[in-house]
Amino acid sequence: MSSGITEIELGVTADMHVHLREGAMMNLIVPTIKQGGIKVVYVMPNLTPPITSIERVKAYKQQLEALDSETKFLTSFYLNSNITPELVAQASDEGLIQGIKCYPAGVTTNSDAGVDPNDFSNFYPVFKVMQEKGLILNLHGEKPSPSNHKETEFEPRNDDEDINILNAESKFLPALLKLHQDFPQLKIVLEHCTSKESIELIRHINKDKTSNDEIFVAATITAHHLYLTIDKWAGNPINYCKPVAKFHQDKLSLIEAATGGEPWFFFGSDSAPHPIELKCVYQNVCAGVFTQSFVLSYLGEIFEKFDKLDNLKKFVSDNSLKFYNLLDDKPLLSSGKSVWLIKRKIQIPKLISNSEVKVVPFKADESLNWTVEWRDTN
Amino acid sequence: MSSGITEIELGVTADMHVHLREGAMMNLIVPTIKQGGIKVVYVMPNLTPPITSIERVKAYKQQLEALDSETKFLTSFYLNSNITPELVAQASDEGLIQGIKCYPAGVTTNSDAGVDPNDFSNFYPVFKVMQEKGLILNLHGEKPSPSNHKETEFEPRNDDEDINILNAESKFLPALLKLHQDFPQLKIVLEHCTSKESIELIRHINKDKTSNDEIFVAATITAHHLYLTIDKWAGNPINYCKPVAKFHQDKLSLIEAATGGEPWFFFGSDSAPHPIELKCVYQNVCAGVFTQSFVLSYLGEIFEKFDKLDNLKKFVSDNSLKFYNLLDDKPLLSSGKSVWLIKRKIQIPKLISNSEVKVVPFKADESLNWTVEWRDTN
Repeated sequence: MSSGITEIELGVTADMHVHLREGAMMNLIVPTIKQGGIKVVYVMPNLTPPITSIERVKAYKQQLEALDSETKFLTSFYLNSNITPELVAQASDEGLIQGIKCYPAGVTTNSDAGVDPNDFSNFYPVFKVMQEKGLILNLHGEKPSPSNHKETEFEPRNDDEDINILNAESKFLPALLKLHQDFPQLKIVLEHCTSKESIELIRHINKDKTSNDEIFVAATITAHHLYLTIDKWAGNPINYCKPVAKFHQDKLSLIEAATGGEPWFFFGSDSAPHPIELKCVYQNVCAGVFTQSFVLSYLGEIFEKFDKLDNLKKFVSDNSLKFYNLLDDKPLLSSGKSVWLIKRKIQIPKLISNSEVKVVPFKADESLNWTVEWRDTN
Repeated sequence: MSSGITEIELGVTADMHVHLREGAMMNLIVPTIKQGGIKVVYVMPNLTPPITSIERVKAYKQQLEALDSETKFLTSFYLNSNITPELVAQASDEGLIQGIKCYPAGVTTNSDAGVDPNDFSNFYPVFKVMQEKGLILNLHGEKPSPSNHKETEFEPRNDDEDINILNAESKFLPALLKLHQDFPQLKIVLEHCTSKESIELIRHINKDKTSNDEIFVAATITAHHLYLTIDKWAGNPINYCKPVAKFHQDKLSLIEAATGGEPWFFFGSDSAPHPIELKCVYQNVCAGVFTQSFVLSYLGEIFEKFDKLDNLKKFVSDNSLKFYNLLDDKPLLSSGKSVWLIKRKIQIPKLISNSEVKVVPFKADESLNWTVEWRDTN
C-alpha cells in the first residue's frame, strides 16, 4: 500500500464525460466541477432537445462559462440526422465542438433521438469530416435491447437478437471495431466502458502502438463502475445507471485498466445528476449516478487501495489531455493552478441541493480518505 | 391458439407460496386471495419475528381464518435454531404446519434469521422428522452473495465465492441435490425457481418417476417470472423481487415448465406485497412483486398465448394438491365451489389499498383478457 503518500499533484485534471444539464440543475452542478478538483470537462449534448446546431452549442457553452469562468468546457454535438458534414466542419473550425456523441436510440436518458448501431453508414460522410478535423467520436457502446418489443416478448431469440442490459455492451463491440477499420484515423472513445471484454478489446486494438500519436481508439472509465456490481444497483436506484455495472470480475478488470497507466484508458465520470424525486419512483427510474462533486475522492480511494497512486495523474490528466489534443493549449496549461489530492477525510453529504433541486451523490453519507485542493503552481 | 376456449373449470385452486403479512397489510391482502380465484394457499412464515413456535403459528392461522373463513390456509415454520425435532413433530401432529420454509440468511425480505446453505447438517434431525411426518421442506434456493462483504469487495474471487444475484440460484442447486440424496423421501420444493438450469435439474431428478407417489422434489413457479427478465426490473422497483428475474431463455424455459403439465411443477405466486412508499426509495427497495389479486388472470394470458389452457388446471390445482397430500381432504374437495377462468377483459388497478396501506399490483393499469368466477359445483 502507498502508506507514505499523503498528497499528490495531479496538474490539469480532466473529466472527459460529464452531464451538466440546464436550468436549476445546471446551476447546481456546474460549481461542483471545480469543487471536485476538475479543470477540463467534456460536456455531453443530450439535452432536451439534443444539441445539434451551431447556435445551440454556442449558447450552451456561454451559459456554462457564465457559471464558471475558470473551468474549461469542451462541448459536443449529438449525432442524429440533423448533423451534416458541413455543419460539423463549421462547428469544428469555430472551435465549438471537440467531438460528437453517438447514442444508440433508446438505451439511456434522452437517447430517443439517437442512431441505429446496426448501421452507421448514413453517418460515414460525417465521420470522414471528423477524421479530417481531428474530432472525437464518443460512443455510448450499447446495443438497444428488444426486451420491450411487445410483439416478440415471448418468441425464441437467436443469439443476435438476445440482447439485454448485461450483454448490450459486448454486443456493441463489433460495431466499434468496424468503425475503426473503416476510419482508422478517426479518434474514437468507447465511453464509460463496464466490461472485461471491452477492456480487452481496447488493449487488443492498441497492442502494437509504439507512440501516443498512433492511438485512435480509447475508452473512458467512470469512478462509480470501480465500486459497483449488479448486486449494488439491484434494489438501489441511486446506483442504477446505463451501462449498468456488471460482475465482480468486470469491476476488477476496470480497476486494473484505470489504475494501470495505459494511455488508451482515461477518466470520464459520466456523472449524471437526476432530481431525487426521479430516483424515488416505482418504475422508470432515471439512469445515472452523480459523482461530480467528489470524483477525485472516489478515485483516490481505489488507486490507494491498489497501490497505484503514482498512476492517478495519467488517468485523470495526461492520457486524456493527449488524446484530446490539449497539450498545445497554452492558456489551459499555464493557468497557474494545479490540483492536489490530499489525504484528509471527507464526509460525502446526504444531498447536494439548491432551492429548486436536490441530488443524492454516490456514496452519500459515507466517509472517504482523500480530498482535493487547488494550489498555485508558482 | 386456443381460440375456441372462453371458459375453463379449474376446480380447487392452489397457490403454494404466498406472503400475507400482518396488521393492516394482512387485512388488505387476505381478501385478495379469493378475489384472485384461489382456494388453498401455503403461507410463508417470514413475519417479524419469524414464526417458530406452536403458539405463534396457531395464532397466525386463527387471524387469517378470521379474515376469510372459506380460504384454506396451510401454514409453516421458519427454519432456524429455534426449530427442534420435537417442536416439528408436535406442530405436525396438531395439524398446524404442512411444511417448513428455509431461507438462506440475508437473501430476501426478513431472511436475516435464516440458515447457512453451505451447511444444513445442523438441521438433519429436523429433516428426519419432517420426512417421517410427510412435511414439506420449502427452499428459497439462493446462495447468499458476498457482494456486501466490505473486506473482500476488491479481492479476486474463485468460482465458489463469485456469487451474485444472477447466479445465486444456480449456485444453490448442489445443496438441493445433496439434501435430496441424504433424505430421498423428504418432500422438497424449490420455491419460485427462475432459471433454465433449475427447471432442467428438477426434470432430471424426476426423469425416471413412473407415478406421482414417487415425486419427492418439485418446484414452484410464479406468475411474474413468466413475464419478467432483468431488463424489466432494472429501473423498475415494482418488478424487483428475489430471486430476480433472469434472461429471456430462462423466461421461456419457465413458461415451458409451467404450461407443460409435468407433475413436479406447480404454482406458487410468491405474491409479496410491500407498501408503495417502500418501493419508491432510492436505496434498499423491498424485494417482492404483488400478484395475489389477479394471479389467474396473469397465468391465463400466458397459457392462452402458448395454447396450453388445457394444462392450467394441472399447474394451479392437480399437481400441488397431490404433492401437498390434499387429495384426501374431503371437506376441501367437497366445498361446493369451483373456480372458473373466464375470457373477459379486466383492468388491473393502479393501486389496491385500504385506509392504512397502498400496494401497486403487477402490471398496474394494464388490461388482461381473463378473469375468474366462483361457481357452485352442484
